Amino acid sequence: MHVSGRVTLQQVAEAAGVSRGTASVILNDRASARFAADTARRVRETAQQLGYRPNRLATALLQGGTQTLALVSADVSGDHFAADLVRGASQAAGSAGQLLYVAQSDGRPELFDRLLHQLIDQGVDGFVYAASSYRRLPIPQVLQGHPLVLLNALPAPATGPGPRSRRPHNSTAGVHDDSPAAVVPDDEQAGRLAGSLLRGAMAARGRTDGVLLLGRVVHGPTAEDPSPGMAGELRERGLRADLGEHKIPLTHLECLWWPTQAREALDAYLRSNPVPGAICALNDRVAMGAYDALRRHSLHIPDDVPVVSFDGSDLAAWLDPALSSLSLPYLQMGARAIELLLHGDQPPGALIERIPLELPHPSSLGAPLT
Amino acid sequence: MHVSGRVTLQQVAEAAGVSRGTASVILNDRASARFAADTARRVRETAQQLGYRPNRLATALLQGGTQTLALVSADVSGDHFAADLVRGASQAAGSAGQLLYVAQSDGRPELFDRLLHQLIDQGVDGFVYAASSYRRLPIPQVLQGHPLVLLNALPAPATGPGPRSRRPHNSTAGVHDDSPAAVVPDDEQAGRLAGSLLRGAMAARGRTDGVLLLGRVVHGPTAEDPSPGMAGELRERGLRADLGEHKIPLTHLECLWWPTQAREALDAYLRSNPVPGAICALNDRVAMGAYDALRRHSLHIPDDVPVVSFDGSDLAAWLDPALSSLSLPYLQMGARAIELLLHGDQPPGALIERIPLELPHPSSLGAPLT
Repeated sequence: MHVSGRVTLQQVAEAAGVSRGTASVILNDRASARFAADTARRVRETAQQLGYRPNRLATALLQGGTQTLALVSADVSGDHFAADLVRGASQAAGSAGQLLYVAQSDGRPELFDRLLHQLIDQGVDGFVYAASSYRRLPIPQVLQGHPLVLLNALPAPATGPGPRSRRPHNSTAGVHDDSPAAVVPDDEQAGRLAGSLLRGAMAARGRTDGVLLLGRVVHGPTAEDPSPGMAGELRERGLRADLGEHKIPLTHLECLWWPTQAREALDAYLRSNPVPGAICALNDRVAMGAYDALRRHSLHIPDDVPVVSFDGSDLAAWLDPALSSLSLPYLQMGARAIELLLHGDQPPGALIERIPLELPHPSSLGAPLT
Repeated sequence: MHVSGRVTLQQVAEAAGVSRGTASVILNDRASARFAADTARRVRETAQQLGYRPNRLATALLQGGTQTLALVSADVSGDHFAADLVRGASQAAGSAGQLLYVAQSDGRPELFDRLLHQLIDQGVDGFVYAASSYRRLPIPQVLQGHPLVLLNALPAPATGPGPRSRRPHNSTAGVHDDSPAAVVPDDEQAGRLAGSLLRGAMAARGRTDGVLLLGRVVHGPTAEDPSPGMAGELRERGLRADLGEHKIPLTHLECLWWPTQAREALDAYLRSNPVPGAICALNDRVAMGAYDALRRHSLHIPDDVPVVSFDGSDLAAWLDPALSSLSLPYLQMGARAIELLLHGDQPPGALIERIPLELPHPSSLGAPLT
């Protein structure tokens, strides 16, 4: 008998005909003498048959771990945009009575390795490995075998460069059964939602013109950037799918994700093209540049051009009018990573949680949300 | 014989007529048998007479510390604006072969205390205690006696609320000999520099009108806010001093430090007042609101109104035109705190390092810097 996918303690308990608590005590070798020998044997055999692997962190905690967790990253704690990932994780760890170390190595691999070794030596019970922007990350060797959840990242395929570069980098290929769980934003769904919001705003104005997508989209890893951010590709895919289903044309104007580049690109575009029906900016900084360009052409937001964006950064609320931006759920994602680490009952194998982005305020869309 | 102020190891060595290395070995009880007994006695007596206190962290490191430091804060690692403090400290710690834990408690005092105890139990060699915005902080009891440097903060007077509230909160009163060293931004000097930059920009346009200061200034602690940010008060003081010396009138328009509040306040002001000769925004977010209000009144930056600001956040570079903003030297401050912790030879007593803010790009001033 073998149950496919993740086997939970609950499934073992049911199959062995005992309570979850009994199964936990027996499988964690605590006071199992309390139970009849054949009960204990039955539970252990059932667990083995089902392929159950106990949650290592839960076991460590039961056996008196150090009650410390670590959020580690090569970049995240020094990044302006990802601070809420840290904050969400800190809050969840604190609520669970756990200490959370935040450690980052500023992009120096040899330092990062040493830092991880030291954290392990100090008895840290579990790790959250985070990226400041959603991407694939190779798992550091030293973390393998330790309780681990990826945050804002998927595991990079562990193969060499040959097969990897031919594999669609947003597929779940390469996510093996022994991959850690991962908590990521659902950028593709957010792209779909952006499409539906822009359709509503254009319909309210009787416009059937196309949507202009503003920002850079990177398709998969390259030699120069083996681990590119995935948000642009996923947002574009979702937007294209939604608009395609409704036969709305989509034009893509490529620019770097910064206000100055977006401003100059859109300014140049508007000088030789008709005004688009709506603008979808790939993030809030791009939208800020779009605001400035639209102002240069005396176009009013949202009456002349509705605008939607992604990230939900502080910047979105500061623009005039406030920018409708689908918010990255960083607080929630940070908290969820800690919860999975502490309470994930299953062996992590290939569990990916996609957290939806949150609905924006309608200011720069000019229409109530429907 | 008693030397006032901080006594360095070098001074002890010179007074005892030995090398710095010899003094270090003897005072740190390492291999002092290598030296003649009277040399060792002379060095120890000299150190005692001079009131020398060894740098505790240096001693710990010589004796084989854990080579881990911690940057602790009730708020900083989850704050968007102070990420460079963490990054600067991380880089300096890494360069010195030290690991740096970043730990924050999200404003929950009982959690913070537990976190500090745990770090001490794990043998952390020294602490940087940081604030996300420049303010006075009470030193947690548990940190006293440990190597400690304050970052972006001054120690709060340890007295009760009575005398404290009557003391000018920017004085160094309350900074005792046993206070830790502190690394803070020189906001008052930056205020003076802002004044001189605005005078230059107004002179280039033949304007002698006054300067409008935009943003909230809090003077000292209140019952509601016992530990207010000090940047506004210091920047205003420096600006007022510079303009006063040159007989330029200064008008202060109070608003919260956010774009929306600044925009509405300046918009209302411009509806019933003459256009000011120049605007000094107390930070970049305030300046962003000022940009929007000036645009509403069809006023051009810098030709109609030069603008200067403080912080040097990303936002400053993103505005159109780029905002001239005096930059908080957070990377440098973070690095300096680690250096003081590792290499500060003196007992910390009342050492305050004020790091100058950096000169801005001239875009929103419209004049080359002089």
